[in-house]
Amino acid sequence: MPSSRTASALAHPNIALIKYWGNRDDDLRLPANGSISMTLDALETRTTVSYDPALKADELLLNGETAPAGVLRRVQGHLDWIRSRAGLTSPARVDSRSNFPSGAGIASSASAFAALTVAACAAAGLDLTLEELSRLARRGSGSACRSIHGGFVEWHAGEDDATSFAELLAPSDHWELADVIALVSHQPKLVGSTEGHIRAASSPLQAGRLADTPRRLRLCRKAVLARDFAGLANVAELDSNMMHSVMITSAPPLAYWSPETLRLMHAVVDWRSEGLQVFYTVDAGPNVHCLCPAGDQAEVSARLMDLPGVHQVVTAPVGGAARLVPTVG
Amino acid sequence: MPSSRTASALAHPNIALIKYWGNRDDDLRLPANGSISMTLDALETRTTVSYDPALKADELLLNGETAPAGVLRRVQGHLDWIRSRAGLTSPARVDSRSNFPSGAGIASSASAFAALTVAACAAAGLDLTLEELSRLARRGSGSACRSIHGGFVEWHAGEDDATSFAELLAPSDHWELADVIALVSHQPKLVGSTEGHIRAASSPLQAGRLADTPRRLRLCRKAVLARDFAGLANVAELDSNMMHSVMITSAPPLAYWSPETLRLMHAVVDWRSEGLQVFYTVDAGPNVHCLCPAGDQAEVSARLMDLPGVHQVVTAPVGGAARLVPTVG
Repeated sequence: MPSSRTASALAHPNIALIKYWGNRDDDLRLPANGSISMTLDALETRTTVSYDPALKADELLLNGETAPAGVLRRVQGHLDWIRSRAGLTSPARVDSRSNFPSGAGIASSASAFAALTVAACAAAGLDLTLEELSRLARRGSGSACRSIHGGFVEWHAGEDDATSFAELLAPSDHWELADVIALVSHQPKLVGSTEGHIRAASSPLQAGRLADTPRRLRLCRKAVLARDFAGLANVAELDSNMMHSVMITSAPPLAYWSPETLRLMHAVVDWRSEGLQVFYTVDAGPNVHCLCPAGDQAEVSARLMDLPGVHQVVTAPVGGAARLVPTVG
Repeated sequence: MPSSRTASALAHPNIALIKYWGNRDDDLRLPANGSISMTLDALETRTTVSYDPALKADELLLNGETAPAGVLRRVQGHLDWIRSRAGLTSPARVDSRSNFPSGAGIASSASAFAALTVAACAAAGLDLTLEELSRLARRGSGSACRSIHGGFVEWHAGEDDATSFAELLAPSDHWELADVIALVSHQPKLVGSTEGHIRAASSPLQAGRLADTPRRLRLCRKAVLARDFAGLANVAELDSNMMHSVMITSAPPLAYWSPETLRLMHAVVDWRSEGLQVFYTVDAGPNVHCLCPAGDQAEVSARLMDLPGVHQVVTAPVGGAARLVPTVG
């Protein structure tokens, strides 16, 4: 088997500052609104893709174990787009490993589909632009399109497959922030993001959230580019609250916050009012992402560990782009 | 002093099933949306008003103590409307007592201004219709207009002072429900309802909430009239979540839920999914109102008392209208 049929890639998850919730097209994962994120170092998914004509069917290992059928089907669909573009028909062996828990409010599907896209395209001999990789990653898992880039990233909602992709807003060395993630529960989510996105439209508040998104994107973009911490804190907390407002008013409602989530959110707001630079944002899970200047991460981490219900704190500085890495073993 | 210059009235608070949040006119307390409530027995405010030309100025006792200047001014303004309507100029002595804590998510201002309105009008010799009393009570404290009636009550938003008042939807014996109130905090609210109503318009979600209100009012009215518990549970929990969504996305945000509030909300939803008829609704405070058939109130109360953070449980069946009572002492 020629070496060009195997490739490995690494990608990081990202934390959304202006969040993606709801699709205008569920199949193509065209989002209902644009979003802005920060890519996270330290947390990563490493994926090796090998196209092998000797295989009977695609095989997927997740952290060393055979993946559930539903996950395999989703990855197969993703590989099919890439194979059809490359004119390949071989089944593939995919080995994907993440160094953080999946399904608990840290976007494991973002780093997973970004790494899969980069590895699968390289192994297939496709030499794509970042824009093309981002569009492909989006079709696998919406927010994966942001993890193609490092630093601060904006995903343009777009109007169709060609216009919906992420671009670099500012590189990883633009602003030394850290995401101090308080893990308050290791329980898997009751309702995954794919189903949640579909449910967004059932909330009477989603239309108002979408109508206001250009304003929040503008405020966030401006705060990131000017390194305006207070401005970013205000718009990111508002945006997180707006997404959870849509969630708790969907039919049926989605309640991702636990009592501990709320306790941490209140604590973060109190700390900021006392002068510590920190703000919260919460994804589709109970964990609380606390963003602060990198110099304050030890202080924020220590305070979080002192609160009841916090099992673990994981700290991530601003991370780099998805990239090819040597295949090991 | 002729006896006609003194009168006493009793009124109950009410719990909103479709909530009032935001005004189209703050001075006249014309609400941004219509609302539906259940009047609560057991909890009550008793108020005696005596017009006395010998007084130098209005006097107000709240639970036996001289009221703060801000509260006195608000009551004076209310008495002035009534005096000008009755052609009176006498200062008044007002003695108001409630049997439940104020400012903690049980609407003490509703029962207080309903009782004040009924007593002050009677003492002034005004013989008003329920519609006129409701309109007057509304100008004192919006939701007080609902406490003029017992049972199940709808406040028509209206377009001006003449058209904004509450009417009986169904009498107190229509449906034997109870409100089992879990008190999780005795701390006074950081931001009172009057300021909160002003802030509602700053939320990007308030317009969507208002646009959807006719639908929720229709669902609630239908569920109350048909004694459809499941239907009432769904629309009341949605409506409560929608109001708190507006609160947490206002500028600056209003965070009335405590971690205990959220724990209780989740517990109530779990209990209902297990077959117990109960739903939650939360006003502008951390306490959780758990509504259930009167026959289940002991079970709901016992379960609430078993949860951490619950200081006290107060149970109220469906209550009657505001009414004149004999003056004591």
